[in-house]
Amino acid sequence: MQVEIISIGNELVQGAVNTDAAFIAEALYSIGLTVDRIVNVPDKPKQLENQLSESFKKSNIVITTGGLGPTFDDITRATVSKVLGRKLVFSREIMESIARHFVDRNIEMPKENECQAYLLEGAKPIPNKVGTAPGMLLEHSGKLVAIILPGPPHEMEPMFKNTVIPFLRERYEREFIKQSVIQTAGILESALAAKIDDVVHRRRPRGEAEVDFGLLARPGIVTVRVAVHSKNELLAEETLRRVRKELYNLLDKDIFGEGAYTLEETAGSLLIQKKKTVGVAESCTGGLVASRLTNVPGSSLYFKQGIVAYSDEAKIKMLGVSEALLKKSGAVSMEVAREMAEGCKRIAAVDFALGITGIAGPGGGSPKKPVGLVYIAIATPKETYVEEKRFVGQRGQIKEQTANCAIDMLRRTLLSL
Amino acid sequence: MQVEIISIGNELVQGAVNTDAAFIAEALYSIGLTVDRIVNVPDKPKQLENQLSESFKKSNIVITTGGLGPTFDDITRATVSKVLGRKLVFSREIMESIARHFVDRNIEMPKENECQAYLLEGAKPIPNKVGTAPGMLLEHSGKLVAIILPGPPHEMEPMFKNTVIPFLRERYEREFIKQSVIQTAGILESALAAKIDDVVHRRRPRGEAEVDFGLLARPGIVTVRVAVHSKNELLAEETLRRVRKELYNLLDKDIFGEGAYTLEETAGSLLIQKKKTVGVAESCTGGLVASRLTNVPGSSLYFKQGIVAYSDEAKIKMLGVSEALLKKSGAVSMEVAREMAEGCKRIAAVDFALGITGIAGPGGGSPKKPVGLVYIAIATPKETYVEEKRFVGQRGQIKEQTANCAIDMLRRTLLSL
Repeated sequence: MQVEIISIGNELVQGAVNTDAAFIAEALYSIGLTVDRIVNVPDKPKQLENQLSESFKKSNIVITTGGLGPTFDDITRATVSKVLGRKLVFSREIMESIARHFVDRNIEMPKENECQAYLLEGAKPIPNKVGTAPGMLLEHSGKLVAIILPGPPHEMEPMFKNTVIPFLRERYEREFIKQSVIQTAGILESALAAKIDDVVHRRRPRGEAEVDFGLLARPGIVTVRVAVHSKNELLAEETLRRVRKELYNLLDKDIFGEGAYTLEETAGSLLIQKKKTVGVAESCTGGLVASRLTNVPGSSLYFKQGIVAYSDEAKIKMLGVSEALLKKSGAVSMEVAREMAEGCKRIAAVDFALGITGIAGPGGGSPKKPVGLVYIAIATPKETYVEEKRFVGQRGQIKEQTANCAIDMLRRTLLSL
Repeated sequence: MQVEIISIGNELVQGAVNTDAAFIAEALYSIGLTVDRIVNVPDKPKQLENQLSESFKKSNIVITTGGLGPTFDDITRATVSKVLGRKLVFSREIMESIARHFVDRNIEMPKENECQAYLLEGAKPIPNKVGTAPGMLLEHSGKLVAIILPGPPHEMEPMFKNTVIPFLRERYEREFIKQSVIQTAGILESALAAKIDDVVHRRRPRGEAEVDFGLLARPGIVTVRVAVHSKNELLAEETLRRVRKELYNLLDKDIFGEGAYTLEETAGSLLIQKKKTVGVAESCTGGLVASRLTNVPGSSLYFKQGIVAYSDEAKIKMLGVSEALLKKSGAVSMEVAREMAEGCKRIAAVDFALGITGIAGPGGGSPKKPVGLVYIAIATPKETYVEEKRFVGQRGQIKEQTANCAIDMLRRTLLSL
């Protein structure tokens, strides 16, 4: 079984990062299909033709992304048609769904989009609920499955998940890979590696399936990936269950969730479960914490209010921070973080409030208060806690670490209730 | 001239994003070498051998990344040696520099690292100042240049910049590539393609250099990439200048910047230039617009305050939206967006304020007010404008499109001052 991904786009050979292929490779891996090769080629008909000829000959599953748009540089449809010797056939049904896309938006359909209503002869369309280009799924000559997808990730990803994965899962019965992706916050990668060293390097007892571990660090968050392989599904599940249990015992509250679960989802479900509400007063994160918390569907149940108090005046007027304190301690101080959190809790009439102040840089630092110095306060029904943090990195990374740390403080506080 | 990048690593076909290839492609492009193909293969000797055989035959420059580490799964050295029929030769000099690396860190050198002191016969080492694995630069059979690099980006990137780029620049006198990446907002990809169709398809006059166009669409933003190739640098520059001018005439205010410039940077520099301040009142975007505006270093000069008024109470209390209006028109309405913007302008004492209310989904929609319905108001010193939008997609995409659209409204309003 040979599996290939071909990503098409000039930008991909000129410096853009290919996230589509990474997404697809990960999704295939999770159903036991390993990708043998990922190829990026530019929007050049001759090059794409050569690549497709070679790959269609060699591989059993070929997945392409990109080049299905309505414009001059979108060459995938025509090139696949040529290489496989299958005509492009107009589909009235798809034309109607494209037209509806524009009607829904109250926009006249540009003539350019018509070309997207053509399908390879014999291909099943893969519905695209976000954009206008449908994908195509084609079983060719008994041996090859060609899957043609658009490039924009927000279009491609749901199409892949909802249509392609179920199709492949049914068609190919593979070795079982059971995996857990355990998400942690508030612990460094090296400290985490030391904590779980025993589990990773200990010889697994006979009769257990093969186990792979992987760590991935992002600012403020470390992911532990455990993958168990076996032809015996029950054995794989049982081994994974045992390893997970060992990791949970060791990491305990450092774990905030599994899979694609986010810190804000965990905090959100704790708030719902404990029937509590939250508000946020932000300076250096500039609204990022509120935006993250409200990324969660249904967050209006517990998120009441956010205040981005960037200027001193805003801190005074909106949050009731004392002018004298701002003068004495400065806007970036433990005391101001505390007053921001307490002010927000009072004004928004919530159970918990975060107060965040710091220096995201690149300007504004000093030897005593360097870029990356951040104070995060959490006001609870009983008392207020403040933490001092020193983060490093660019402005965006400091904002991200601060947001992760603040949401994690909220999570840990809720856990300890 | 055929240029290929081969990136080696299991992780690259299991879901990790290949940033090495993107970095190399961009650096090559900047010196006039276009990459024809990027291939990711796993750490499997047979597969790597096949890929290298094929690529060494086809291409003039082959750059590999990865597989030079000291452990069992690092197979690049041995496989290249086999495919090219060149022995691996021990280098005392490199052994010493590896040993020094460990001495400097006060760590005993593991025996595993010895293998990194072997070079392909005839290869020049590429010094690695960060890690232990040197790279290799090999001119083979007069036609092929093979460049072998380690995978960790912080090792590979300086090696590529400091050694590989100067070498390639000297060896290949190439045509010059001059390019512009023009960023637009507030126009659909297909509408943009229609607008510039003439420029793209018109025969360039004799004596102009060759021009390539590419379009890339993200939610709310479309990028036009123009690349001009010529052996004559001045001609390339002159042609680019002319094409840029034509595009600027056609796209005019749709263009918000070039290169990596963001919408919020453009809006920010207009605010600074016109000495104006801004505030934001957000409901469905939940702080995203404030966070985006404050991603810009120095934004504290013009961004005064953000209010995330998620609940009706917050809209009433914090922004002075009338309770009667909320009852009559509903929180997602033109009138409430208007009152949010005007309330924010008054309370934050700013020149411009955005008011944003909508249904980000997945819940909360109705036939009359579906998910994706958004109202964006901008209060200016003179009057308030409100726009109704209907976006589609997941919650995150609706938030992103809304944020791009709101920041673009601010930008266009500032432009028209």
